[in-house]
Amino acid sequence: MSSLVSSLNKVLSGAVFFFCTFNLAQAQTSEYQVQHLEPASWWIGMKHPEVQLMVHGNKIAELTPVIDYPGVTIQKIQHSDNPNYLFIDLRIADNSAAGNIEIKFQRAGQLIARHNFLLQQRRNGSAQRQGYTPSDAIYLLMPDRFANGNSGNDNVPGYSDKLARQVPGARHGGDIQGMRLHLAYIAGMGFTMLWPTPLMENAQAINSYHGYAATDFYKVDPRFGSNLDYQQLVQEAKQKGMGVIQDIVLNHIGSNHWWMKDLPTKDWLNYPGQYTETNHIRSTIQDTHAAQSDKRRFADGWFVKTMPDMNQRNPFLANYLIQNSLWWIEYADLSGLRTDTYSYSDREFLARWSHRIMDEYPQLNIVGEEWSMNPNIIAYWQRDKNNHDNYRSSMPSMMDFPVYQALHTSLIGDAGKPAEMMTMYEAIANDFIYPHPNNLTIFEGNHDTPRIFSALNEDIALNKLAFVMLATLRGIPQMFYGAEILMTSPKQRDDGKVRGDFPGGWNGDQVNAFSGKNLSAAQQDMQNFVRRLFNWRKQQAAIHTGKLIHFLPENNCYVYFRIAGKETVMVVINRNDKNTELDLARFAEVLGPTQKARDIISEQEFTLEHKLKVKAKSALILELN
Amino acid sequence: MSSLVSSLNKVLSGAVFFFCTFNLAQAQTSEYQVQHLEPASWWIGMKHPEVQLMVHGNKIAELTPVIDYPGVTIQKIQHSDNPNYLFIDLRIADNSAAGNIEIKFQRAGQLIARHNFLLQQRRNGSAQRQGYTPSDAIYLLMPDRFANGNSGNDNVPGYSDKLARQVPGARHGGDIQGMRLHLAYIAGMGFTMLWPTPLMENAQAINSYHGYAATDFYKVDPRFGSNLDYQQLVQEAKQKGMGVIQDIVLNHIGSNHWWMKDLPTKDWLNYPGQYTETNHIRSTIQDTHAAQSDKRRFADGWFVKTMPDMNQRNPFLANYLIQNSLWWIEYADLSGLRTDTYSYSDREFLARWSHRIMDEYPQLNIVGEEWSMNPNIIAYWQRDKNNHDNYRSSMPSMMDFPVYQALHTSLIGDAGKPAEMMTMYEAIANDFIYPHPNNLTIFEGNHDTPRIFSALNEDIALNKLAFVMLATLRGIPQMFYGAEILMTSPKQRDDGKVRGDFPGGWNGDQVNAFSGKNLSAAQQDMQNFVRRLFNWRKQQAAIHTGKLIHFLPENNCYVYFRIAGKETVMVVINRNDKNTELDLARFAEVLGPTQKARDIISEQEFTLEHKLKVKAKSALILELN
Repeated sequence: MSSLVSSLNKVLSGAVFFFCTFNLAQAQTSEYQVQHLEPASWWIGMKHPEVQLMVHGNKIAELTPVIDYPGVTIQKIQHSDNPNYLFIDLRIADNSAAGNIEIKFQRAGQLIARHNFLLQQRRNGSAQRQGYTPSDAIYLLMPDRFANGNSGNDNVPGYSDKLARQVPGARHGGDIQGMRLHLAYIAGMGFTMLWPTPLMENAQAINSYHGYAATDFYKVDPRFGSNLDYQQLVQEAKQKGMGVIQDIVLNHIGSNHWWMKDLPTKDWLNYPGQYTETNHIRSTIQDTHAAQSDKRRFADGWFVKTMPDMNQRNPFLANYLIQNSLWWIEYADLSGLRTDTYSYSDREFLARWSHRIMDEYPQLNIVGEEWSMNPNIIAYWQRDKNNHDNYRSSMPSMMDFPVYQALHTSLIGDAGKPAEMMTMYEAIANDFIYPHPNNLTIFEGNHDTPRIFSALNEDIALNKLAFVMLATLRGIPQMFYGAEILMTSPKQRDDGKVRGDFPGGWNGDQVNAFSGKNLSAAQQDMQNFVRRLFNWRKQQAAIHTGKLIHFLPENNCYVYFRIAGKETVMVVINRNDKNTELDLARFAEVLGPTQKARDIISEQEFTLEHKLKVKAKSALILELN
Repeated sequence: MSSLVSSLNKVLSGAVFFFCTFNLAQAQTSEYQVQHLEPASWWIGMKHPEVQLMVHGNKIAELTPVIDYPGVTIQKIQHSDNPNYLFIDLRIADNSAAGNIEIKFQRAGQLIARHNFLLQQRRNGSAQRQGYTPSDAIYLLMPDRFANGNSGNDNVPGYSDKLARQVPGARHGGDIQGMRLHLAYIAGMGFTMLWPTPLMENAQAINSYHGYAATDFYKVDPRFGSNLDYQQLVQEAKQKGMGVIQDIVLNHIGSNHWWMKDLPTKDWLNYPGQYTETNHIRSTIQDTHAAQSDKRRFADGWFVKTMPDMNQRNPFLANYLIQNSLWWIEYADLSGLRTDTYSYSDREFLARWSHRIMDEYPQLNIVGEEWSMNPNIIAYWQRDKNNHDNYRSSMPSMMDFPVYQALHTSLIGDAGKPAEMMTMYEAIANDFIYPHPNNLTIFEGNHDTPRIFSALNEDIALNKLAFVMLATLRGIPQMFYGAEILMTSPKQRDDGKVRGDFPGGWNGDQVNAFSGKNLSAAQQDMQNFVRRLFNWRKQQAAIHTGKLIHFLPENNCYVYFRIAGKETVMVVINRNDKNTELDLARFAEVLGPTQKARDIISEQEFTLEHKLKVKAKSALILELN
């Protein structure tokens, strides 16, 4: 095994890591087994030079680890209430040399077991890596449903949840190889960031395809590929101008996680030993009146029985999760993180976690999922928010659910209320609550929401209006794969169907969205529309960093401007079912004297004098000169 | 006239003021007329010892005012762009003596005109007066519609808008005397604060009854009574344990205000000379993206053509309005102010205005009307809010429209969405946004909203639930007159009908809510319910200052506690249409071991063990021991 490590080190300079959580032990007696040692590698030159190893094995607490490696010292050895665990705090001097560190486990001075721990050099500029920004556009996809690039890993021995494409909740075979094959397509669509839903091993009996029930935090699920495949994906994406965002779950694990057979501590899980469902009432975090029992039930309650909820108040677990995130950023060369079910984790832990990551990577981006339509609850979690309770988060971005909701309801109404652009105007007007509104991540939908085309009653004109707003409002836009070709779903949440197979991702698909084969005219038109929009957006400083000035909607027509230096973009969203004429005098403070303008959708030229005609249910994106 | 002043001074020690805006001049030539001098009195020993007099008269700017009165000096004489106005800044030393100050108006050393200005001692403790607090309950009434105590002032010569009780938008004859006659009723109902809608002169052609279109800022409308009547009302209310809140309009005047014939400055009004309606988009104040034109249109736009919008950026006008508020507090001995259409006035002026008043009366209360359901917009205006733009208001209270809305929608639903107590839970959960949630003014309705009983589909059980919440949630409760006897209105806004005549307020009324004569059984029951509730509330420290702890509603049953020291009140609001059983174990963190409890509604005793039965659509208010 050490020869394999050594040869891989030759192939992938500095960035390589040989992954194996099982059978790590290189010498051990039958009584004392080292079953897990995590992380199995670390880097020289991190801002925080400490790393804590979790060692798991029969009676391992009876052994004493010893290291003899220049620059690397054991700072502390800690035990938990489970004698099968040992926590070793290492300190790695900046001048250490890369290599394998042998950890000897001794008892009464006698060598019982040995393990290698890999020490690596960081990539150049790793700490200063640039995360995604509002100049990016994110393509969110579900790997199992995007493209099956390697049918050889559709089923893997030892993993019981098998391929069954006809079953919405089963595995469909998509994988990392599928993503690699189609990076050019995604980049060509104008996207600069790829967010795959989690790739970690989910050795669960059912629903393993979605990836949110990790059974190993350091191992890509073999049905998606290997850790090395993942590294390759990121490097190839970079070559095409795209970064990769990793989807991180801090809140829960899968019930088949190896910990579950032998928990590291008695308090490793919340509501230990008893499944207790979360109440999902996230306001309990901020609410000064909330009952303690409701607060606990929210943060400590489980999502579902098969997803045990982690107690991040345990310092070993907190360290483990923080290190795991750092490890993947460094290992896979990520451009950022997306944090699942953000607020469900321990609040103090989240502050520590986000602070530590941003401290190591000051220009990284992280977006948290806080599924609330209350902007105050979203804003609470964003970096620099001046909170009532002095809570300080370091999260640069949050998913903008209020604007997601407004995107839908402004176009189709809600609960009997009519579609009004005022809804979007008011959602944007709330930006004063946020410390960094332009760093919020806006989206048309995701793997948990109905498909936007279905939500908008399959109205192509409205669908285009949504995409114009997505591409031109403040924030970082994120699209869910397949929205560009009008993929549909039930209007109510229906996970298996929302997460449909992308046509062309499977051998034998009759329709191929990559090549365009057999796409309907409407699908091709939408795909071209999205492609043009996001490719145009890539070059628009006014959209990336420009000030947003918006005007009170009149006649259900919403007009806003994005302005950066001499670049001004005027956006007109006409939700009116009739052709509408705008009196341009209202916009004089931005337009100034008569302007020439070019609509980047129709490629038509306009002279902006007195009046501007806008067709029913249509948008203009005018570059002003 | 001076003998009248003198004799009144004897009657009402220190607090008297002889009011007259017309014919003030005691000696003047026909060429130079002093038509107005405002204010016509001030007080010794104010924190800010300056007062600015506005003098209006033909060519008055050509004259020089001179004063010879110990301790009183003219600091500055200023002119506007209208030669018929003069502004005199007086400084009043703390050791000045009360008396009439003669102001001589001279030209080239020659006396042209003379005027008396009254200098008075303040009441003892005036500066430290205690404003209303959460221990109070406010009875809001519309004087024209409450009781006609003096039919002699129903019509007054010179005022064209006449009595016509059958016309919803005409005057109905209610007056100050009517309020005075029924103070015992209001106090007996358990209310400790009386808020009459504005009493200032509204010499408007129509709709003068509502009082929001002042034509004289220093004069009670004679159809309501005199300034002295108003003083009497306040003193008599005090004797019954009630304070009075004055309704102040800073935003606009009536189109028949005397200024309109000869504006003090060219910029006295917004959009001068041209009626331009406000867009009512209050978010433009906070919105960092709002167009300047929309911001201006909101704050500077007029309500209606008959209500010219004041430009408080003009420093003379700003001073005038600030002094006018101080004048009434001091003159009428008020317990607080309510500010109409709060955010429609100039933002910087509002800060100055509220700051100055609270500086003079640190324990006063003021509540602003900001008709928004967005708590962020309400919170922006409250004292101590840490705003994004560093805006600092000094407003202690704001009307709590979001809780008003929740009070209704949690009980009857909204736009097809079901009635859910979760709506109220979420509204209260937003309290973390406010610097002082317990000082917000909560209300079931007012003169601009549909009658609550009608809004709740005339469901008496729901109506009672609303009142239980009104009386026991955090904040200062305010009820609109007549709600206690189930007065009704159309469900959509209909001012004239919402502001119905209170039965018993007019001679010959068949129904008399004061005596109970001919009230229906349901009305009597509701009146008793309200009376018991608010009389009980008067003594409840747990309600006034207690911590609020609420629990996530289950089975549409909302449970919260108010806790102050050893006093604990448990409130159960069962919106469920079925009898519901509460598992008391959920509330263990508050309840502790088995408790005895007494329901103040049914006067029934309970032992709180394991389960608690609550009838369908009913409430419990349990005093715990």
